[in-house]
Amino acid sequence: MKNWENHVRKVVPYVAGEQPKEQDVIKLNTNENPYPPAPGVEKVIQNFDCEVLRKYPDPDVSALTSALAKQYGLDRGQVFVGVGSDDVLAMSFLTFFNSGKPVLFPDITYSFYDVWADLYRIPYECQPLDEDFCIKKEDYMKPNGGIVLANPNAPTGVMTELAVIEEIIAANQDVVVIVDEAYVDFDGRSCVPLIEKYDNLLVVQTFSKSRALAGMRIGYAMGSQKLIQYLKDVKFSFNSYTMNALTIAAGVASLADEAYFRQNLAKVVATRERAKKELARLGFVFGDSKTNFIFAAHKTVPAQEIFEALRASKIYVRHWNKPRIANYLRISVGTDEEMDRLFAFLEQYLT
Amino acid sequence: MKNWENHVRKVVPYVAGEQPKEQDVIKLNTNENPYPPAPGVEKVIQNFDCEVLRKYPDPDVSALTSALAKQYGLDRGQVFVGVGSDDVLAMSFLTFFNSGKPVLFPDITYSFYDVWADLYRIPYECQPLDEDFCIKKEDYMKPNGGIVLANPNAPTGVMTELAVIEEIIAANQDVVVIVDEAYVDFDGRSCVPLIEKYDNLLVVQTFSKSRALAGMRIGYAMGSQKLIQYLKDVKFSFNSYTMNALTIAAGVASLADEAYFRQNLAKVVATRERAKKELARLGFVFGDSKTNFIFAAHKTVPAQEIFEALRASKIYVRHWNKPRIANYLRISVGTDEEMDRLFAFLEQYLT
Repeated sequence: MKNWENHVRKVVPYVAGEQPKEQDVIKLNTNENPYPPAPGVEKVIQNFDCEVLRKYPDPDVSALTSALAKQYGLDRGQVFVGVGSDDVLAMSFLTFFNSGKPVLFPDITYSFYDVWADLYRIPYECQPLDEDFCIKKEDYMKPNGGIVLANPNAPTGVMTELAVIEEIIAANQDVVVIVDEAYVDFDGRSCVPLIEKYDNLLVVQTFSKSRALAGMRIGYAMGSQKLIQYLKDVKFSFNSYTMNALTIAAGVASLADEAYFRQNLAKVVATRERAKKELARLGFVFGDSKTNFIFAAHKTVPAQEIFEALRASKIYVRHWNKPRIANYLRISVGTDEEMDRLFAFLEQYLT
Repeated sequence: MKNWENHVRKVVPYVAGEQPKEQDVIKLNTNENPYPPAPGVEKVIQNFDCEVLRKYPDPDVSALTSALAKQYGLDRGQVFVGVGSDDVLAMSFLTFFNSGKPVLFPDITYSFYDVWADLYRIPYECQPLDEDFCIKKEDYMKPNGGIVLANPNAPTGVMTELAVIEEIIAANQDVVVIVDEAYVDFDGRSCVPLIEKYDNLLVVQTFSKSRALAGMRIGYAMGSQKLIQYLKDVKFSFNSYTMNALTIAAGVASLADEAYFRQNLAKVVATRERAKKELARLGFVFGDSKTNFIFAAHKTVPAQEIFEALRASKIYVRHWNKPRIANYLRISVGTDEEMDRLFAFLEQYLT
């Protein structure tokens, strides 16, 4: 090892779900929306005046933050936009978790939280979920350096009641509490209304799932003006222009079509509810997912085996070889046709 | 101040040049290219299949890193791509400067370097340029935690000879040396060939200036496989997908049109050389810029006064109220027509 390598920040990177390059796969492994983005997105991209690309984009992302503020009944100063919710969350960890005390999050949750904590050398303590993958609120009532909760949780799909979330926020007003609502649009309940009550609450959402724009990279945070300003200061100390001109336009176009958004969500939710029935019939057990995925274990066949059999048939789902969840598969909700092919395969494979 | 605010990372953000919202301005303040990006960029955007946006983009940005590797005769593993060179540089600071010793860069240089150092609590020491805004190589021959040099330098436009750059790298093989070549395409000389010789050299470039794609946000770093891998590990610990699908396609399209690129550069360089003559005639003094801007002081009229007069006439240039450079204006090279309007104004104002 060369001397310069001694001072490199060594990290264990997050491993995202596979993005297979083949085209003829059924891709139920990264919780993408099975339907295309709103038609207005295509229109705005195809009609984009590319000459403006020679200029820097709006550093304040005004058009998109304004549209989001309007959508949620907030002021523009209560909204922060980033390159997907991962960008927003990473910057939030850097901005808010500097007390030296451990940040708290569940042992089973979005597996980027511990990666960000490690990246920034932020101490953390994982709090075990109960047997039903529910959080135990008393775990979050001790001294800490901040709290991060995905709600609904990933990869479990379990939703914590807002009353419990509020109890946790109320008991932790000396630290920043982040609620990651990446999946909330699929039937969940958002804690955005609590922003007015708690200036230490940051709610993070994304265009990647419910708005079918994973490929465009748009995430956002909502919180008190004060909280958002601190986040903006760090962002402007990192990169003045994170959101490119096309992305801003696409985000605005997506928000403009509420009818398409609602229709798309209804389709995904309907397919998910049908999938629950099919998977139960096939011998799977799972919680009551309020997301666009189902986290399921089979009563008799190990998850690893099913995962490999599916993969050999070009059906991609997600599986983690991790404590407590090694026997689960996270199955994203695809189109009805894709799900039927999944059920048909499982029917044959399991029986 | 609330308790949670005590543990917020407090920073003094970088202030970018103004992006005025009015349309009828002459914008010579942020070193944007006055000409549009390659025609292929528009084509690829207008024909983009927006349905793919529902899926995550390629996390490895393979198409663009491959195209860049080919362009520079490197392996794909020697190239890293980010959201503008600011994103690349910010991640490089975080990745490589962890020794606790001060990082060295000139006192007059890209003013984001000290902002990144402050953001990540990296100690640094500014080394004074000489009277002609040239670096003194002996300043970089003492113990340090890393070196960052913009070459050509910004905002001065001064180019350091490659032999001097190499002497500095050779004397600093125990730390990472970053050479920021944001402006190198406008007549400068790149130190990319030194990558094969020094595995601690990171060269950073951008599509924002010479490729007229500031609005698209594409920057890149080139270095040894080892160096790039460390940078990738940090990037994958921050955000799996920083480059969106459209941006990747636009970047590839830009690289594909070498003829347009060369023609565009020749135009900007020709206008710059003409501008040097005009500005000299108008009583300005300046170094021999090898960039798409000229950093000039007037012999008799204070920069602040000229700056304000220009601004009142909707001609935007850049001015910093900072020690040593408060009497300079940084004037980006626009189209010939824009420059003629600038000269006409100055002619009238100064005489």
